[in-house]
Amino acid sequence: MSDFKPTARTRIKRLPKRGHYERETVNAILDAGLVCHVGYTIDEHPYVTATSYWREGDRVVWHGSSASRAIRAVKQAIPVCFNVSLIDGLVLARSGFHHSINYRTVMLFGDAAPIEDPDEKLASLEAFTERLFPGRWAELRPPTRQELKATTVLAMRIDEAVAKVRTGPPVDDGEDYATTRCWAGVLPLKLAAGEPVDDGRLLPGVGLPSYLKGFDLEAYGKANAAAAE
Amino acid sequence: MSDFKPTARTRIKRLPKRGHYERETVNAILDAGLVCHVGYTIDEHPYVTATSYWREGDRVVWHGSSASRAIRAVKQAIPVCFNVSLIDGLVLARSGFHHSINYRTVMLFGDAAPIEDPDEKLASLEAFTERLFPGRWAELRPPTRQELKATTVLAMRIDEAVAKVRTGPPVDDGEDYATTRCWAGVLPLKLAAGEPVDDGRLLPGVGLPSYLKGFDLEAYGKANAAAAE
Repeated sequence: MSDFKPTARTRIKRLPKRGHYERETVNAILDAGLVCHVGYTIDEHPYVTATSYWREGDRVVWHGSSASRAIRAVKQAIPVCFNVSLIDGLVLARSGFHHSINYRTVMLFGDAAPIEDPDEKLASLEAFTERLFPGRWAELRPPTRQELKATTVLAMRIDEAVAKVRTGPPVDDGEDYATTRCWAGVLPLKLAAGEPVDDGRLLPGVGLPSYLKGFDLEAYGKANAAAAE
Repeated sequence: MSDFKPTARTRIKRLPKRGHYERETVNAILDAGLVCHVGYTIDEHPYVTATSYWREGDRVVWHGSSASRAIRAVKQAIPVCFNVSLIDGLVLARSGFHHSINYRTVMLFGDAAPIEDPDEKLASLEAFTERLFPGRWAELRPPTRQELKATTVLAMRIDEAVAKVRTGPPVDDGEDYATTRCWAGVLPLKLAAGEPVDDGRLLPGVGLPSYLKGFDLEAYGKANAAAAE
């Protein structure tokens, strides 16, 4: 796995120590996330669309209705900025200025193309489901031809990429440690799962599947990273 | 409070029942969020930057280093797409096609301008801190002139806006309820706070402030919505 070369768009100029160009760091963040924000421009106007995504080796993949404006625009191979941002905590310092957020973010630049081959498309949708819920694909009613036609799957190579990460406690100015009487530290945040709620129409004997017990996005991200290679 | 008129950019064409143009709905989502994604275009290339934000009446406000590329670009009054997306749950259906995400999202279009007046700028930064941590501003070492200069505060009017919301259980095709033996329902997700971790350098007698006990982004969003008017 080769690392990324900083480009004019990905070079971190401010706080450069927060920038990371190792492919392993970029992939780990992509594997831990659920939703990305896709930025694109139509008629000189920027749009940002949030959507779920997954990683397959050296590409990210997302999908949507073939009729959606965002999907129809992006499949024309226009430039895209693909952003994943994981919020890990609020950083409370002794001055307003040094308050911050602990985060892991990835920005990718490139353009996306639809996966047209029917088998490749189906395999990619299966990978998306299995990434979140291992074993579920085989339980589902298989997709129909019409459903596959109504779904566009877009892939974008992970070529031009940068990760940016902040961790750890606040960094205060020296004199403030001695003179400012306030609590300082980190309030951890994470996207956490609650108790699953069934829809009240389960067939007799259908129980809670193992993939929903103790569901943990971060844990599955680590566990499934290898599968994406 | 007047509601929003759909425009070419904000009219929801697909699944229009998910679109909402009431100002109250838009504001409630903005008040419940912590991080936005700002989309903008430089030299025909889209960028998406995640950052914290807050709402003050009929504008959203965010800030950053005066030296940051994102801040310097956006303060030139270029077109901006401002996106807030709250992920409420994974929706598991009986077919892959009907899987979904429960979410609340807001898209705003417009352009941003820096808050130049020093008093207004300071009041806005105070509002940002107090929104998250009521009472904290008075505990902090006040900002210096240099810190205020190094910080740019951007405001954008909430003029062209749309909310999009999905809630509730999966909606499956009729026959699948009878024939597909799998669990179906919703796995709730929320950005949840863990236990606060102090930085080990608190002055003697400084304890955990009340605003960090039982911190709940959604609850503070509701509680503080009135304050933003």
